Amino acid sequence: MTSLQTVEKKPNQINGLDVQAAHDTIEAIKADKSLARFQFRARNTWIGGGTNRSTIRDFYGAGREDASRMTDFVFTNGEPPVLLGNNEGGNPVEFLLHALAGCVTTTFVLHAMARGISIKELSTQLEGDMDLQGLLGLDDSVSPGYEEIRIMLNVKADCSDEQLEDLLAYTEQHSPVCNTVCRPVPVKIKRVVAK
Amino acid sequence: MTSLQTVEKKPNQINGLDVQAAHDTIEAIKADKSLARFQFRARNTWIGGGTNRSTIRDFYGAGREDASRMTDFVFTNGEPPVLLGNNEGGNPVEFLLHALAGCVTTTFVLHAMARGISIKELSTQLEGDMDLQGLLGLDDSVSPGYEEIRIMLNVKADCSDEQLEDLLAYTEQHSPVCNTVCRPVPVKIKRVVAK
Repeated sequence: MTSLQTVEKKPNQINGLDVQAAHDTIEAIKADKSLARFQFRARNTWIGGGTNRSTIRDFYGAGREDASRMTDFVFTNGEPPVLLGNNEGGNPVEFLLHALAGCVTTTFVLHAMARGISIKELSTQLEGDMDLQGLLGLDDSVSPGYEEIRIMLNVKADCSDEQLEDLLAYTEQHSPVCNTVCRPVPVKIKRVVAK
Repeated sequence: MTSLQTVEKKPNQINGLDVQAAHDTIEAIKADKSLARFQFRARNTWIGGGTNRSTIRDFYGAGREDASRMTDFVFTNGEPPVLLGNNEGGNPVEFLLHALAGCVTTTFVLHAMARGISIKELSTQLEGDMDLQGLLGLDDSVSPGYEEIRIMLNVKADCSDEQLEDLLAYTEQHSPVCNTVCRPVPVKIKRVVAK
């Protein structure tokens, strides 16, 4: 239905997002679709056992290499004792839930803005089921990944329940992380020799 | 080929992982498959704009609620200025790359242990392409998620190149996050009223 193409030009913020900046982005992309092309990146180093660390900083988007970040973001994966670690950090499948929660939230808030809906509160609870026989190679009929992920979303906004349901369905279809999980996305791994 | 079923019982560590503990886990799961069932969770709260925060702590696995974590892990999603934020944190699609990097690394290290391969160094670089016309709802023929994710893996270990290639192929098939991304996994979102 309503897409971001319909964002009206207003000089203020809705949901903490700059409506004018959103409008300008949309117009720029409509004039030159190549500006919508982004490449995100991460570098990760194994520390030992189930512990490893990623640094995230640069990305390409809107026609150029981004230079807005003055320092790296650093995130540590670890494992709980039952998975042979010492809780050095959240584990990778938990970080996936964090990514999904964040993406659904931001997509919801963004498209609420496009519809002129003010969000008062928004929170989610996620749970995902997994059978470790897959990871461990104990049963080839068991998929190693999540079987299903459920998101319980609580939102208060200045609109009707019907509008919220419609926005939620739109969010589900347009969230990049949700789409990456729901759809088969190719992951290509190749071995290289570090410089 | 070689799965974790073949882990030999040794009283030491390989790759920083406790071989005895791994052996015990495998034996316990073979005796009672229900111990392989895990449920991971996250709770997320919207802060404003493209900023939101997850807390991660509890999970179910190995037949019970885990109680090993004394504090929450807290992770903040943000967006760069070109995506209407102020770099309050990595963004959700970047956290997905972190999750994928970590999972491939840990899966590789785990199954190297099962094969008696000692890893000396392991690092990855990831990049993923995305067309923001999908997220923005500007073109329904564009998928909002990643089109493809590439992982460049650099590893040094005490084995042949052939063994590393075989281990890498096994890892690709058994990593939970890699599998979740490569395969269509259902994400069910429903609206609830917070207590």
